[in-house]
Amino acid sequence: KPRFSNEIYKSVDIPGVAVGLAWTAVGGDILFIEALLSEGKGELKLTGNLGDVMKESAMTALTYVKANAKKLGIAIEDFSKKNIHIHVPEGAVPKDGPSAGITMLSAITSAFTGKKLLPFLGMTGEITLRGQVLPVGGIKEKVLAAKRAGLKQLILCAENEKDIQEIEPAFIKGLKFHYVTKMEEVIQMAISK
Amino acid sequence: KPRFSNEIYKSVDIPGVAVGLAWTAVGGDILFIEALLSEGKGELKLTGNLGDVMKESAMTALTYVKANAKKLGIAIEDFSKKNIHIHVPEGAVPKDGPSAGITMLSAITSAFTGKKLLPFLGMTGEITLRGQVLPVGGIKEKVLAAKRAGLKQLILCAENEKDIQEIEPAFIKGLKFHYVTKMEEVIQMAISK
Amino acid sequence: KPRFSNEIYKSVDIPGVAVGLAWTAVGGDILFIEALLSEGKGELKLTGNLGDVMKESAMTALTYVKANAKKLGIAIEDFSKKNIHIHVPEGAVPKDGPSAGITMLSAITSAFTGKKLLPFLGMTGEITLRGQVLPVGGIKEKVLAAKRAGLKQLILCAENEKDIQEIEPAFIKGLKFHYVTKMEEVIQMAISK
Amino acid sequence: KPRFSNEIYKSVDIPGVAVGLAWTAVGGDILFIEALLSEGKGELKLTGNLGDVMKESAMTALTYVKANAKKLGIAIEDFSKKNIHIHVPEGAVPKDGPSAGITMLSAITSAFTGKKLLPFLGMTGEITLRGQVLPVGGIKEKVLAAKRAGLKQLILCAENEKDIQEIEPAFIKGLKFHYVTKMEEVIQMAISK
Amino acid sequence: KPRFSNEIYKSVDIPGVAVGLAWTAVGGDILFIEALLSEGKGELKLTGNLGDVMKESAMTALTYVKANAKKLGIAIEDFSKKNIHIHVPEGAVPKDGPSAGITMLSAITSAFTGKKLLPFLGMTGEITLRGQVLPVGGIKEKVLAAKRAGLKQLILCAENEKDIQEIEPAFIKGLKFHYVTKMEEVIQMAISK
Amino acid sequence: KPRFSNEIYKSVDIPGVAVGLAWTAVGGDILFIEALLSEGKGELKLTGNLGDVMKESAMTALTYVKANAKKLGIAIEDFSKKNIHIHVPEGAVPKDGPSAGITMLSAITSAFTGKKLLPFLGMTGEITLRGQVLPVGGIKEKVLAAKRAGLKQLILCAENEKDIQEIEPAFIKGLKFHYVTKMEEVIQMAISK
Ligand SMILES: [Ca+2]
Ligand SMILES: [Ca+2]
Ligand SMILES: [Ca+2]
Ligand SMILES: [Ca+2]
Ligand SMILES: [Ca+2]
Ligand SMILES: [Ca+2]
Ligand SMILES: [Ca+2]
Ligand SMILES: [Ca+2]
Ligand SMILES: [Ca+2]
Ligand SMILES: [Ca+2]
Ligand SMILES: [Ca+2]
Ligand SMILES: [Ca+2]
Repeated sequence: KPRFSNEIYKSVDIPGVAVGLAWTAVGGDILFIEALLSEGKGELKLTGNLGDVMKESAMTALTYVKANAKKLGIAIEDFSKKNIHIHVPEGAVPKDGPSAGITMLSAITSAFTGKKLLPFLGMTGEITLRGQVLPVGGIKEKVLAAKRAGLKQLILCAENEKDIQEIEPAFIKGLKFHYVTKMEEVIQMAISK
Repeated sequence: KPRFSNEIYKSVDIPGVAVGLAWTAVGGDILFIEALLSEGKGELKLTGNLGDVMKESAMTALTYVKANAKKLGIAIEDFSKKNIHIHVPEGAVPKDGPSAGITMLSAITSAFTGKKLLPFLGMTGEITLRGQVLPVGGIKEKVLAAKRAGLKQLILCAENEKDIQEIEPAFIKGLKFHYVTKMEEVIQMAISK
Repeated sequence: KPRFSNEIYKSVDIPGVAVGLAWTAVGGDILFIEALLSEGKGELKLTGNLGDVMKESAMTALTYVKANAKKLGIAIEDFSKKNIHIHVPEGAVPKDGPSAGITMLSAITSAFTGKKLLPFLGMTGEITLRGQVLPVGGIKEKVLAAKRAGLKQLILCAENEKDIQEIEPAFIKGLKFHYVTKMEEVIQMAISK
Repeated sequence: KPRFSNEIYKSVDIPGVAVGLAWTAVGGDILFIEALLSEGKGELKLTGNLGDVMKESAMTALTYVKANAKKLGIAIEDFSKKNIHIHVPEGAVPKDGPSAGITMLSAITSAFTGKKLLPFLGMTGEITLRGQVLPVGGIKEKVLAAKRAGLKQLILCAENEKDIQEIEPAFIKGLKFHYVTKMEEVIQMAISK
Repeated sequence: KPRFSNEIYKSVDIPGVAVGLAWTAVGGDILFIEALLSEGKGELKLTGNLGDVMKESAMTALTYVKANAKKLGIAIEDFSKKNIHIHVPEGAVPKDGPSAGITMLSAITSAFTGKKLLPFLGMTGEITLRGQVLPVGGIKEKVLAAKRAGLKQLILCAENEKDIQEIEPAFIKGLKFHYVTKMEEVIQMAISK
Repeated sequence: KPRFSNEIYKSVDIPGVAVGLAWTAVGGDILFIEALLSEGKGELKLTGNLGDVMKESAMTALTYVKANAKKLGIAIEDFSKKNIHIHVPEGAVPKDGPSAGITMLSAITSAFTGKKLLPFLGMTGEITLRGQVLPVGGIKEKVLAAKRAGLKQLILCAENEKDIQEIEPAFIKGLKFHYVTKMEEVIQMAISK
């Protein structure tokens, strides 16, 4: 029985929450990026036992969203009148690396627009300030974890398509893959209309 | 003679204080989370020999309370006009981990609403920004410590129910368990009306 | 000849100074907590080669005093218009631990009220934000040092009374003990009227 | 097939992005410096797993651009009304050293003027506050990587010309070299009119 | 020929400079504490390769001077309208410990009052916030260094008198000692009228 | 052919740049201190892979210049309306120690007055807040490096004259030495009229 179907689906069915894929010492796993706004002066708080590179991913995603606010339908004043807190649960587990970039991007965009992400959607990919999605490692382990957790579609960097082709098809039956090269494709695809 | 009955009951019978369960090198123990407001500019002070993950739990709980202020009956201005100091006594003992999350949440909510927690109540569970309660480890040791200390009811994550079922019933006779999945259930149950 | 009688008595006969008891590698000792106000913006400065836990004791004491200002007869504005500097002399000796809590409390309260502490009084005990006094270790060594230094009365946590009862009575002849459980008892007893 | 031609050309065809050359443990590589402005108060954010010396290069470049704003056609108020975020992708790879100086300079100038850099252009060289370009190491490895990536012209310090002359000409056929001694020559040559 | 007589005398013949005694790995030495005011907002800058305890001595001295400003003839506004920079020359040598306390005190008082210290005067002693002077170590080595350097009078803590009595009188012929217990005696004696 | 004559002469022929002498693991070298002002609020930025002692030299020089602004012909408001960035090129080389003090002083004074330093001039010496120049080590290696680089005159501390007298005269033929004891002599001699 997929672990995700009921409980998890409901828990992520609010704006600001995105599902990522992680590659840990004990195999692949899914992880949740939670972004929550509150009244403030534009501060970014980061919690969840995150390493420096993962914190930089969040900063990079936030700058991108801010610089593209108009296109994304976000009022620019919100960045100076709100604080944004990004948390990644399971505080006992240290987390690092750049691969949560598009998940950070999606969670932040969702929090500021108030629009939820699509259900049963996971993603993994590094981001750049100029809007690209870069490939990441551990794809096989991450994708199998996504399948076990009951996710139904995944967003990956186009350069990671070759990693999917090396997986036995039976193992990922029922999973739909979206290959992207730009961050705006991620937002287009992940954020509900 | 339960250690908790008199002295401890009185000591926690004020707003801002919640009783948690800890799992230390020498077995389970109870711990107290104390939240105290003072005039200020919205600063959070954390003391009590706390590790980074435990500090992040407090930050996460505070953001959640702030974002749900209205629902909780807290005036939003209080977050910018008060400082909140969270202290965990027994400064000689280093403390860490995410399991005090719901205890932090309860203490902060109690401090801001001015409503006390129920008496003889303990709790343990990790929190997320989106309002979930996550399971934690060391349940058997924590629960036995709660019993020894004279606590009468405990709030745990629903996913920790299986850990309770593995404990010899005689050992926990008289203890009432509340299993929750959401942070609002914790507040509903823990904060006096 | 007790070292304390003349010189030390005079040196502590001013508001803001309290005498604590320390337990060091080379046995017990007395220590002085000095709190001095100056014009400022509410900053807390801590000096004297203090470890993190001892610094947290000072922060905790200050928050308690601030939250109980009215009851203690302190104008609340003073906390934002004054800086408070707490120094513990003998900078060559590293100091740490929570046991100077009630001494910090007494020194801070004395500094803000302008009332001196009683003469020949020493104290040791951890504090909590909710106003309790907790027991501390090294009681025997601390009390013998207090005796040697010429102190005449000591404030201890009630839970430390058993440690006093284990000391040969002749060694502590002439010392009067006050056992407390609450921080307000400390202030009541220590601060001159 | 040169890796750069399509995808990369397009990805850098926006203001604020410059292509540098890096010398890593596994040989030469190209790297991208991305500079992005947003509303703010003049803060500089640096991400991408950068070491202290590389961060100092960015600070030095920014001060130079600020001090020469008028000559470069940048409104001086922009430095206090905008934040600038500089990111170097591939967060999993630590990056350090002063050799990205002229690339930082070009990216920052491009971001503030809104003018793109020339296409298929790479560069490497240390900068100084007084406007010089200094030679850097690893030229052979860097240049071969530039060639593999499909770059067509490179800006180098004049003192690095001797390093180019030691490379077998066939290896760098089709690459055009620009040797400079001053930072204003870099800007003159790199920024599109 | 005493090293101090000419050059050094002149170099310290300005307000804000006091001569201390240090005890280093290679024996005793004199050191100079230089305090210089400039327009500012009340910041304290500390340079000269100073350890934490020595920095704390400077902070403690400054708080004492501020709290006793009126008695010392210093306008209280100066502490918020001036910055004070304290430097201890010979940056290649790490310096630490509490023994420069009275020298810091003298230099700061001299800088704020504009009155010079007496010539050929050295001093060593720890300070407290309540105005005491405490004894320090290395007296013999320090005093011999003072003699070699051409100093003529020294201020020491009264509790260090016994250390002077253990020195062969011929070695310290011509040196005059002032033994003090309070910081106000130091200022009284050290600062020119 | 002296390396300095053309290129370097021109590169330092602007206000804010001074030539120092360094003593490194691989022998003596010249180094450049670059000071550049920009609109700001009085911040000091320090880059170039500098150790703490060298950073303290820059802070000390800046305080001295600020405190002597009037005498040096600098408007006191400039220290609060400008930022000053001090950079020492060759970021790959860690630099430390107090010997660049007079070079920092000269560069800062030159930047604030807008007056250039004399051409072909190098210098080395520690500074104090009271305006002295102190001797430094590695004189022989530094001076030979200055000669190789084409410098024509050097400013040294008077106490370093003995180190020059130990060098074979033929090695330093054509180099003119200026021995100083005060920082105002350095400025007098180094800054063009
Ligand atoms: Ca998991
Ligand atoms: Ca991910
Ligand atoms: Ca306990
Ligand atoms: Ca707990
Ligand atoms: Ca002692
Ligand atoms: Ca104590
Ligand atoms: Ca690469
Ligand atoms: Ca480069
Ligand atoms: Ca010396
Ligand atoms: Ca001294
Ligand atoms: Ca060099
Ligand atoms: Ca130098």
